[in-house]
Parts: sequence; structure tokens; C-alpha cells
Amino acid sequence: MISPIGERINGMFKDIRIAIKEKNAAVIQDYARRQTEAGAKFLDINVGTAAEDQCAVMKWLVEATQDAVKTALCIDSQKLDVVKAGLKVAKNEVLINSSKADPEALDIYMPLAKDHNASLICLTITKAGVPQDVDTRVAISASILEKALEHDFEIPKIFIDPILLPINCDQKQAVLMTQVYQQIKIMADPPPRITVGLSNFSQGTRERSLLNRTILTMAMAAGLDAPVMDVLDEELMNTALATDVVLNNIIYSDSFLKAGRQMLAGS
Amino acid sequence: MISPIGERINGMFKDIRIAIKEKNAAVIQDYARRQTEAGAKFLDINVGTAAEDQCAVMKWLVEATQDAVKTALCIDSQKLDVVKAGLKVAKNEVLINSSKADPEALDIYMPLAKDHNASLICLTITKAGVPQDVDTRVAISASILEKALEHDFEIPKIFIDPILLPINCDQKQAVLMTQVYQQIKIMADPPPRITVGLSNFSQGTRERSLLNRTILTMAMAAGLDAPVMDVLDEELMNTALATDVVLNNIIYSDSFLKAGRQMLAGS
Repeated sequence: MISPIGERINGMFKDIRIAIKEKNAAVIQDYARRQTEAGAKFLDINVGTAAEDQCAVMKWLVEATQDAVKTALCIDSQKLDVVKAGLKVAKNEVLINSSKADPEALDIYMPLAKDHNASLICLTITKAGVPQDVDTRVAISASILEKALEHDFEIPKIFIDPILLPINCDQKQAVLMTQVYQQIKIMADPPPRITVGLSNFSQGTRERSLLNRTILTMAMAAGLDAPVMDVLDEELMNTALATDVVLNNIIYSDSFLKAGRQMLAGS
Repeated sequence: MISPIGERINGMFKDIRIAIKEKNAAVIQDYARRQTEAGAKFLDINVGTAAEDQCAVMKWLVEATQDAVKTALCIDSQKLDVVKAGLKVAKNEVLINSSKADPEALDIYMPLAKDHNASLICLTITKAGVPQDVDTRVAISASILEKALEHDFEIPKIFIDPILLPINCDQKQAVLMTQVYQQIKIMADPPPRITVGLSNFSQGTRERSLLNRTILTMAMAAGLDAPVMDVLDEELMNTALATDVVLNNIIYSDSFLKAGRQMLAGS
């Protein structure tokens, strides 16, 4: 079943940027509650780029969120010290977002995640750049899992993000991506989990919600577990649950939309 | 790109049943035009079960439809003489719907289709019944293609329907179906086409349109070409076109919904 990562507590959104600036915890907590009620299993926490003291802001966001909900946090920053600042105050379960796939990066992030009993998103990005083909993404994914074995890191706590480019940048990436997902899912048993920045796919397009729904169904059928997504888009969540029903991940009943939301909220 | 088969001219629908009874061609022609404008590449023509003289009704429906549009017809009956009655008056391109997969059935329908330069839907049903597993469906599909070779019947004019049961009958069938599609698509080059009674999948469920959209995306990703579907469901058609864009079957532009409909209407 899908494990949505709610994307909304992110300083890239104007209302969050303002809330951060004004230290208005109520705005953050409202999004924390609403996203949790809508079915988020993780809440992405990202300070954005405007914040001056990113470590302090991450700490504040994590604390504000935890005061409202017990939902797992997805501590999201490209900066190690900002991630560490979030981890320091985290009491809820944590998913670290993210490490690149270079050995020296994984050798830092995997022990860090283990120390905090956290899961870890690993991007299939290395110093060589962002791969555009199936084989390189699969090879990098395999190297991530090798590192996990080396660090005795539980494979199901690895979330691989094979980087899906926006459809208006490179239209053939979506099909390649589903091939990558299928190959990642047979690499280990139990397999690693797969994540994607879903909204990124439709960035700059006119039919964003429709394209998000379409790629979501296709990606879930190929093995996607935990998209970073707009869980407050009701139609998108309906599509996620319908896809889980069609994939036989949750039992069909006439009220599967309600039952599915209860399952997400419950466990 | 998807080739939708418009499902609406079917005596199972009450308004069509009444139109047949009252010989009201305007109702039929209105559906013929509206479905064509909505993107139907074929118009299913089915007399339903209530009609007394099914041959005469099929003839009337075909003639009424042809007076309105040049769209290809999908002459739909389980009775050979009703199909023949339709073929007799058909001037538009024809897809025969359908033959079972027993050799003696194919030995009748394939020559008949060839004589009329028609395409042919072949169900993966035999005297042994409706298969519920992947392997039997694939084996029957292979036997259909063998028969096509024997009859020198062009493979791309074969539309295989591996029979998708309603989700509330057997929930695991949808995933099996996508596996069947993938295997059928690699059986020949160029491959046969694949069809499904899409609305049948959601029969008796509460979220029909949502489930139809979800299975459509998943099935198209696995190789579905020509679903019998409600082309007048605008959201379903939007999903079909979005899926074709995500699959890179049609070129992305901000106005792909409009462009896709023009492509379907044009060729």
C-alpha cells in the first residue's frame, strides 16, 4: 500500500516561508494535522532556500510539527548540518531526505541514519551527475544496496529515488522510470522502497493534477511505495487508493476510499 | 496511441433500446456523432438482447450510423448471423466483435473477416470456459495467432480480448491482465492489438469512473490499444490522453488534451 510523504511543509511554498519568518507555528501545525488526516505517512520538512539560519529553522519546524502530530518526519535538506539539526530534536520516527549515492556520502549518511534508527532516501545521483538511462540508475541502485549490506543497514529502510525529470524536460523518462522501479524491486527480498518527487514530474505544465494522477498510477503499478506528493489533492489521493485496490494491495469494498484513508490514518 | 471503441450504441442501454423500438435513427446518429467527436476510432454496434429480429435491427443500426459518420464500426454480437447482417450493409471500415478462440470458430470468423477486409476481436474463451490465470490466456492468445498465420490474416488486424473480470468478482485479475498484455505484445512484430471491455471492470461498483480511469492507465502502460469504453466520460478521455503523453505516444504540449482529441478525430 502507498505510504504518501506530504510535501507541504516546505519553505519553497510562500505561506510556509512567511510562517517561518513570523515564527507562526499554527500554520505549520495546521498543515501537519491536515496532511496526516489526508493520509500522509510521512511529513516532509524542508526549510526552503530563503531561511537565514537553516539549522535553527529546521529545529523549529520539527518541534512545531511534533507538537501537533505523531506522524513520521521526512527531514529534507541537502545540507548535512541541517539534517543533523532536525535529527537532534526529532522524537517522531524519521526518514532522512536525502543522501547522494557516492560511497563517501553513503558512508556518512548510513551510520547517521542507523544512529537515529531512521530510514534513508538515497538519490541515484553521483558526482558523475543525474543518470538519464535505465542501466545507470539500476547500477547505482545496486551499489546503494551493497553499501547498505556493508553498513548492516536494513534494506526496507532504504528508499531509493531514481530521479524523475519533469515531463516537459524529457518525455521518455517516465517509461524508463517504471523499468527502473521493476528492476529495483527484484534486487533484494524484502526489497528496498521506492520514492519519487511526484509534483516535480508535472512542474511547469498546465494539467498538473491530471499528470500527477496518471504518473502515480503507472509508477505504483511498477513498484513505487512512497511518493513525495500533495496529499491535500483529494483526487490524487483517490487515485492512489483506487490504484491500490486495482493492484489488490487493499481489499475492494464499495467504500474503499473511506476505508483506505482510515488504514493510512490508523497504522 | 489509444484507439477508443465507443460503447454507447448498445441495446443494453435503455435509451438505445427505446430508439430501436421506435425506429428513431436520430438518437443513434446523435451518439454516433458525439462519440466520434469525443475521440472514438470505432463505434460499437450491439442490438442488445431485447430486439426480436436481431438481424434486421443490426442492419438498421449500421445503416443509421453510417448515414451520420464515416467512423469505423465494431459490429458486436455473439450470433454469427447477426454479425453477417451487419457486414452485409457495412460501408465503413469494420471490426468484428467477436470470435471465441476455438479452432472451429476461428475457421469461420477469420475467413469472414478477410472477405470483408475487416479486423477481428478474438476472445480468449474456449469450450473449456473463461481462463482465470495468465498462462492459459497467453497460450490461447498464441493459438489465435497461429490460426491467423494459417489463414494468412494480418496480425495487426487481430484484436485479442483476454477477458477482464469485474474487480468485485476477482480482485487479483487486473494485475494478471497486465502480465498477459505484456506477453501478447511480444508474440509478433508487428504485434496483435489488445482490447478490453473497460466498463465491465467496474460493473456494480460505486466509484465506476475512478476505477475505469485507474485500470485504463495501468492497462495502457501494459499494452492495451483499443478499449470498449465510455468515450463521453470526459475525465476518462482526459486520462487516456494523459496516459498517452506519459507513455510518450503523443508529444507533450501544454494543450495535449486538445491536440490529442484533434489527432483522434483527424486520422
